[in-house]
Order: sequence, then structure tokens, then C-alpha cells
Amino acid sequence: MTRQFRKHRLPVEQVRRYLEPGPVVLVSSAWDGQRNIMTMGWHTVMEFSPSLVGCVISAANHSFEMVRQSRECVINLPTTALTDEVVGIGNTSGAEIDKFDRFGLTADQAAKVKVPLIRECYANFECKLVDDSLVDKYNFFIWEVVSARIATSPKHPQTLHYTGDGVFMVSGKIISRRRQFRAGML
Amino acid sequence: MTRQFRKHRLPVEQVRRYLEPGPVVLVSSAWDGQRNIMTMGWHTVMEFSPSLVGCVISAANHSFEMVRQSRECVINLPTTALTDEVVGIGNTSGAEIDKFDRFGLTADQAAKVKVPLIRECYANFECKLVDDSLVDKYNFFIWEVVSARIATSPKHPQTLHYTGDGVFMVSGKIISRRRQFRAGML
Repeated sequence: MTRQFRKHRLPVEQVRRYLEPGPVVLVSSAWDGQRNIMTMGWHTVMEFSPSLVGCVISAANHSFEMVRQSRECVINLPTTALTDEVVGIGNTSGAEIDKFDRFGLTADQAAKVKVPLIRECYANFECKLVDDSLVDKYNFFIWEVVSARIATSPKHPQTLHYTGDGVFMVSGKIISRRRQFRAGML
Repeated sequence: MTRQFRKHRLPVEQVRRYLEPGPVVLVSSAWDGQRNIMTMGWHTVMEFSPSLVGCVISAANHSFEMVRQSRECVINLPTTALTDEVVGIGNTSGAEIDKFDRFGLTADQAAKVKVPLIRECYANFECKLVDDSLVDKYNFFIWEVVSARIATSPKHPQTLHYTGDGVFMVSGKIISRRRQFRAGML
């Protein structure tokens, strides 16, 4: 499995293809001279266009104040080639270490935000905060994806899906039911 | 693959085990003498306790007014044994048909809500609406799971994960990284 991908731009309204199946993602952030990465599994697509994604980033995370202040993040999609990194990032704190350095990940410059994206991930979705009205009550952030890049291959990445308790489901086979769909429902 | 399950109660704070991996779910609803089912993929866990789940139910769906008025629903988790039903339910409208009848599904009485649950599903999460503040703007409903039942086996259901365009990812193998986790992070 590779950690090196050639990437191309993805129209932001198609981000759902990769997030709707529910993978664990790595959220990168930057603020006040620091950068950080967190592992995150509580997210949902909310709209095609504008391309909206909602997610919970607990106030207990070092990333919380960083994304709240900067109002930016990158949602990076790791494959199973990064399983150990996903677990390691989720079990350490950016208050103590630089996670790019610790986990051997490359911080590349993003196109539309000041937050670095993670080169070794399959996809990178650059986000700006558009609604923080539920942050105080639920730690719930609503982001607009303003730029998206994905690997040119494979078409379907092998992703990690967290079930709690240290256990992951790995994405399996792909099936099409396209012929059973009404045109307007695709 | 079976559509018949023996079920037991699940503590509601453990619902994340089944929803966090991102499966397509079937939302059942009831209001004003009608009942309905919709296929839904835009959801996220928001809290362990109380057990909160946020989801988008578009105003274009027949279910929208039903759940908005009744302030209740059941989130039912189908396995791949119900793939055709999942697609069929997503491509028809409750304004025209009774989906329980059309798709041969059994409406069982729920424990804590007036909405029927779907017997043939692996799990049934009974929900009450606790926050509708983002319904007008984003069609986003925040539910509290007040009662949960899951099948006694298998431990890991084979679920459907939608990627758009009529294509589903089927849940694959299970891997544990439990030994790499810090105790407090499990």
C-alpha cells in the first residue's frame, strides 16, 4: 500500500463521495506559530453546494482552540497505509509534540487556507468555518470545503472506519446499484 | 444473509459502535396516521451521554414534516441482506406508497417512541428530537437516542456505505489496534 499519491482537483460538491461512507479522517490545523493533527470520526456531509461538512472536535483536544481561532482546517483522508499513524495521532497531544515530525508526515502548502495539508493522505479537503453557532453547546463545527484534491488512483481508497474500543472496520468491496436508481436520485 | 435477528438492549452510550463507521440507515417515522421510511446517509455521532446523533433530512423528503412535527424517529441499521430495499426506499416517496407494505418490512412497536421500528434491521435506535435550531437553515436535526436494541449476532454486521452515483462500499474486515491505545482513549 502506498503513501505516495499523484493528486488532482476534485469539484468540491463531490466531496461526499469520500466522506459519506464514514471514514476516520485526520484534521490538520495551524494557529499562532503551531501546527497540529488530530484523528476524527464524528463528521457528516451537510450540503453539496456550498460543500458543507459538520464535525465534532471536542474542547478536550489541543486542536479545538486552534481551529476555533483560525477558523480554518484541512480534512485529510488517510488509507490503511497510515493505520499506525492514525492510531498514534489519536493517542498523543499536540500540546506535547509536533505530530508531523513525530509521525513522519509531510506538511504541504494548501491552496486556499493557511493550514498545511498532509501529503501522505489520499485526499485533502481545505475548509473554512462558516457556522460556529453550535460550538459552545456541542463542540460542533460547520465547515465549507473551499478546495479539494484527491489521488488519481485507486478509484476507491481502502479507508478506516472506527467502531470504538480500539477496533476499526476496513472498507470492503464496491457494489453498484446504479440501474435501480431513478435519474434524479443519483 | 439473514433478515431475522434475535435482539437485545444496548446501552445508548454505545450506539457509536454502529453509527460512527458511517453506514446507510433507514429512518422510520409516524405522524397523523401515516408511517414512512427513508434512506439516509448524512449523520454523525455528537455525544456519548446523552447519546446524541445529528443528521440531515432534506425538506424535499416526505419524512421531513413527519419527523419535524412528531419530534421522534427510529434510526434502523440495515445489513446487505436489505440492499434492494435500501435502494428501493431511497427511490420512492412515502407520499405515494406505504413503504413497509411495498418492501415487505415489518413494523414493530418501539419501547419509548410512537414510531414503528423495522424488525428486519440489525439494530434499532429510538430517537427524540432535542435540538431543531439548525433545521431551518441546514435541515439538520439533533436527536437523543433514548432506547437501543441490536442483534445478538453477528458481532460486526455487514453494512452499506454510500458513495453517491448509485455505488455502495460494503463494510470489510475488522482489525484491532487496541494494544496501541492509551487506556483513557479507548
